[in-house]
Amino acid sequence: MHRADDPRATKENGIPHGDSVYQSVISGIRPVESKLAAAAQRKIDNKTKPLGSLGRLEALGVQMSLIQQDLAPELNRKSMLVFAADHGIASEGVSAYPPEVTAQMVANFLGGGAAINVLCRHNNIDFGVVDMGVKADLGSHPLLYDRKVRKGTRNFAIETAMTDEETVEAIESGMSVFLSEDEKQRIDIVGLGEMGIGNTTSASAIISCITGISAADATGRGTGIDNEGLSHKVETIKSALALHNPNAENGLAVLRTVGGYEIAGMAGAALAAASKQTAVVLDGLISTAAGLVAYLICPAIQGYLFSGHRSVERAQNAALEHMGLEPIIDFSMRLGEGTGAALSINMIEAACRIMGEMASFEDAGVSGKE
Amino acid sequence: MHRADDPRATKENGIPHGDSVYQSVISGIRPVESKLAAAAQRKIDNKTKPLGSLGRLEALGVQMSLIQQDLAPELNRKSMLVFAADHGIASEGVSAYPPEVTAQMVANFLGGGAAINVLCRHNNIDFGVVDMGVKADLGSHPLLYDRKVRKGTRNFAIETAMTDEETVEAIESGMSVFLSEDEKQRIDIVGLGEMGIGNTTSASAIISCITGISAADATGRGTGIDNEGLSHKVETIKSALALHNPNAENGLAVLRTVGGYEIAGMAGAALAAASKQTAVVLDGLISTAAGLVAYLICPAIQGYLFSGHRSVERAQNAALEHMGLEPIIDFSMRLGEGTGAALSINMIEAACRIMGEMASFEDAGVSGKE
Repeated sequence: MHRADDPRATKENGIPHGDSVYQSVISGIRPVESKLAAAAQRKIDNKTKPLGSLGRLEALGVQMSLIQQDLAPELNRKSMLVFAADHGIASEGVSAYPPEVTAQMVANFLGGGAAINVLCRHNNIDFGVVDMGVKADLGSHPLLYDRKVRKGTRNFAIETAMTDEETVEAIESGMSVFLSEDEKQRIDIVGLGEMGIGNTTSASAIISCITGISAADATGRGTGIDNEGLSHKVETIKSALALHNPNAENGLAVLRTVGGYEIAGMAGAALAAASKQTAVVLDGLISTAAGLVAYLICPAIQGYLFSGHRSVERAQNAALEHMGLEPIIDFSMRLGEGTGAALSINMIEAACRIMGEMASFEDAGVSGKE
Repeated sequence: MHRADDPRATKENGIPHGDSVYQSVISGIRPVESKLAAAAQRKIDNKTKPLGSLGRLEALGVQMSLIQQDLAPELNRKSMLVFAADHGIASEGVSAYPPEVTAQMVANFLGGGAAINVLCRHNNIDFGVVDMGVKADLGSHPLLYDRKVRKGTRNFAIETAMTDEETVEAIESGMSVFLSEDEKQRIDIVGLGEMGIGNTTSASAIISCITGISAADATGRGTGIDNEGLSHKVETIKSALALHNPNAENGLAVLRTVGGYEIAGMAGAALAAASKQTAVVLDGLISTAAGLVAYLICPAIQGYLFSGHRSVERAQNAALEHMGLEPIIDFSMRLGEGTGAALSINMIEAACRIMGEMASFEDAGVSGKE
């Protein structure tokens, strides 16, 4: 959506020109069309229930009607894409788990044993993993996309996490993975999950930078660090933002300095999904940080976004407020992987079925309000 | 659980003796056995995720493990029972809808067009309707249990809603419907829904009486009355409780004076389910009022109960606090029928599958916390 004369759209800032995947996706994004809004509201209001009595479920159904431009929206294909990468910042001791857990958890995803596998099976969501930068050789697997940019980002306590070229490559990889899956069979809704030891530090730094909340307010315990670890994590984020001072209005600059390859990949996938009128379900802190970057790059994606759940990590809330999103469930979860998104996709599908299948007062011969 | 020498267990108070269905169910209820609690917690703690990171889902999984006494609980059969009845109190003008809507909505349930039908189909929950006292001849239907006690309760603004005999008959009907369904094929979880124009007035009166909150605090807008209607509804409840002054520690007395046949039926079904170690999911205001009566009759059912959702009707919260229950979802819904329960059963099932299917650190070869 950047015009050619937009001063940010220069090679120096890393934004690709012309016929790149990046520009083609961005220029294909249209805000959700609201012309069916009145008809969708009328349809839900005429169903056999007191006005507004299905609460949030009604709002979800109307939003899906607008996204699909159909008063009987359907989720024929539900997908979950889990983006994995390692983080140079992990060497600063900001996580409770060792970095090799990233690769071990990818193996667990491919073996079907992780929480996200269970929840995707439970809700009939298909599942794929994208290696965006895991610090290990993962081999090949039918569920694995190899889009490794590099074996982990650089340590952003010392230098920028990635180069301009890597930033664009990571975003475009996320875009192309979504587009190639969508090409095989249309995806109606996609959940965005992640794995990457150290990535709450990156996500908190991104959210602090873009929303303006302090490093202290943006930082949580991640996988479970103690008080001392938490203070160290806050200081690490504060120093890194002071060191790089990224332009908070430039999503690519924020990603490049303190981001992660999987976060860039998820931002790309969110943009590509919106360009195909596919609903996007964000998960917890890291997924929401990626959504925030995508929203900063192209605010027109807002109407395609859902927040799957409220994370325990409080920086997520600042990002959600910035985008005007309200979480669907609140289970005090902090696992990531897309687990909150997988649970809430069932709710969004319930809302679609209410729009499509529930009888009206007229259909059912039920008397209205006196 | 009442002893023979319990002064409440007298014919005068309507509590049946001996070999009645009522006494047989009550004496079959055992509190949820906690002997597997440590093993269930250990199992969830060893799964490939940071400790506690699945939040509420972990608690739901552990509770289901205890209910089923199995570290891999399963929901092979999920059922929804919707209890319907009319209310004499409706003639006081306490509802926004005319009383004939109760029968019309039962026809809608049997035709598959109501919200609860859609949500049960969505989550593979089987579905039945129990006519406890609808003011119409409903004919027969494979999904309909005819347990009509009377065509609507009496107007409790003037006289007691039901007789002693009707109260017991209604509770025992709820028990026997559950037991006969469970006999056909074991029910692992049951949602309790309802339909009955006027029944928020009855439910608010029950909750005000049992929990001690004022009529004003217990009363909401139901299907959508205006301010004037709300004041009238508060006054109606206040006067009725003053008129009958039921013993707040006697569930049968509360039901008899200000209850409803469908509420008594749901209380009976909850008690019968607990007697068979079946999980019970309460829905909104009316279903929760029924759960509260069942809990008052036999507090040992507590561990079998789940609160499906937080209703807009605030009296529900007082009842939940009284029972120590926390709602699973919060969608600002106020429809009833079991809709909130149907949505949350999907979450409870997800929790069961996490307990049964997710890999441990050892299984998956993933490193633990440093």
